[in-house]
Amino acid sequence: MIRIVILGTGNVAKHLYKAFKAQDSLEVVQVYGRNPKALRYFEPYTKTTSELSNIMVADVYMLAVSDDAIGTLSKQLNLTQGILVHTSGSVAMNLLPNRMGRGVFYPLQTFSENRVLDFKEIPICIEASDDDGLRLLTQLASALSETVVPLNSKKRRALHLAAVFANNFTNHMYHLSHEFCDQKDVPFKLLLPLIKETADKLEGLSPYDAQTGPARRNDKGTLKKHLSQLKSENHKKIYSLLSKSIQTTYGKKL
Amino acid sequence: MIRIVILGTGNVAKHLYKAFKAQDSLEVVQVYGRNPKALRYFEPYTKTTSELSNIMVADVYMLAVSDDAIGTLSKQLNLTQGILVHTSGSVAMNLLPNRMGRGVFYPLQTFSENRVLDFKEIPICIEASDDDGLRLLTQLASALSETVVPLNSKKRRALHLAAVFANNFTNHMYHLSHEFCDQKDVPFKLLLPLIKETADKLEGLSPYDAQTGPARRNDKGTLKKHLSQLKSENHKKIYSLLSKSIQTTYGKKL
Repeated sequence: MIRIVILGTGNVAKHLYKAFKAQDSLEVVQVYGRNPKALRYFEPYTKTTSELSNIMVADVYMLAVSDDAIGTLSKQLNLTQGILVHTSGSVAMNLLPNRMGRGVFYPLQTFSENRVLDFKEIPICIEASDDDGLRLLTQLASALSETVVPLNSKKRRALHLAAVFANNFTNHMYHLSHEFCDQKDVPFKLLLPLIKETADKLEGLSPYDAQTGPARRNDKGTLKKHLSQLKSENHKKIYSLLSKSIQTTYGKKL
Repeated sequence: MIRIVILGTGNVAKHLYKAFKAQDSLEVVQVYGRNPKALRYFEPYTKTTSELSNIMVADVYMLAVSDDAIGTLSKQLNLTQGILVHTSGSVAMNLLPNRMGRGVFYPLQTFSENRVLDFKEIPICIEASDDDGLRLLTQLASALSETVVPLNSKKRRALHLAAVFANNFTNHMYHLSHEFCDQKDVPFKLLLPLIKETADKLEGLSPYDAQTGPARRNDKGTLKKHLSQLKSENHKKIYSLLSKSIQTTYGKKL
């Protein structure tokens, strides 16, 4: 049985709590949150506290707080045994104090409230300051996911930045598309099957090979017509830069 | 029974052929293709021809060719009855000659070889020059899909441009992410569950509400750190422009 204390009450904390709770080999012994109101979600199921001095004994102390809070909160903790891990993609492991075992437990996914996620499919990137820690985190991560990847802080940081392109920027493309649909009074929801297939396609095809469209074909006539359809300066600028980037990717002369 | 002649042998022609063939109420009586080799795919199942003079009698003549070829090919056709439709998002219906019924049958999807698609879920946008044509295309489209949308040429053109953002540009984000992963030696495939969830989330959440990440939070420290991690000028330029666009979207001061 691995005993876990979760520190944090946000979306990541909730999703992790639910995933841990579903495993017989894991026990969330306590959830810590500064704000007692935010703890209500967990109260029916496990012990909770708002006092750092009341934190219980556990094998793993898991920080599920914002990147900025990791440093401050971890310094305030008065723990001497077990392993202290954070769940961030971009924060280095050695930001954690070194008076106890340290590690990282980074589930590579976007966590929104009210979304049901299958943790089995979520890659969990782990890192630890010693072999015992790595063994423990491997055991913990393997209870949840089929994809457990040891990754050092530098590589994890790179993966996190790649995720900004694949998730944040992609979602912004959806937003611009949505905005343009609204302007022209066509229903954005018609695009949902296309959006899904664009993502699903990557299972068998690299994005390099999957690319289609006027920029890929270097179809200058259509590119020009598209630009003239766009009224927003922001849409125009992004259309031009991304089309140019696609044309360059496929070695077209501009 | 609706009799169909497909003109074209590419991915759209193949996907449409398979979808029509699966319906008892539809019959593809013939496939036309300029290049006899490209017709081989269809030969075991239906009649084929490379001669425009041999085109058989049908209710619907469906052009599944590149945008550029629609005008030229439709002018060469010597048809007087039935309805001639194209399958393009960006070409106006009135590019087709007006000596017979005209229409558009635009399945809003990205068609790649070897992908199995469920046509039931693909929106089909239709347009016709007269009421009889619209009825026939409604019947045809409804045999395939649960989402049949009458849409005029102007709105269809707007939807097509929105699809460039949602599909072409999104896929390019995947590619840039892939490129960056390769540079830093981290496996891109770890991002696939995140990419899927980013797309799936739109079912219950608008992309405006789904946005996350440092630009959304106006987290200038992380934005700066990310920029310094990127070595490629192209990655830097795109990172800056899209982050700025996200910041502006959420009313942040730059």
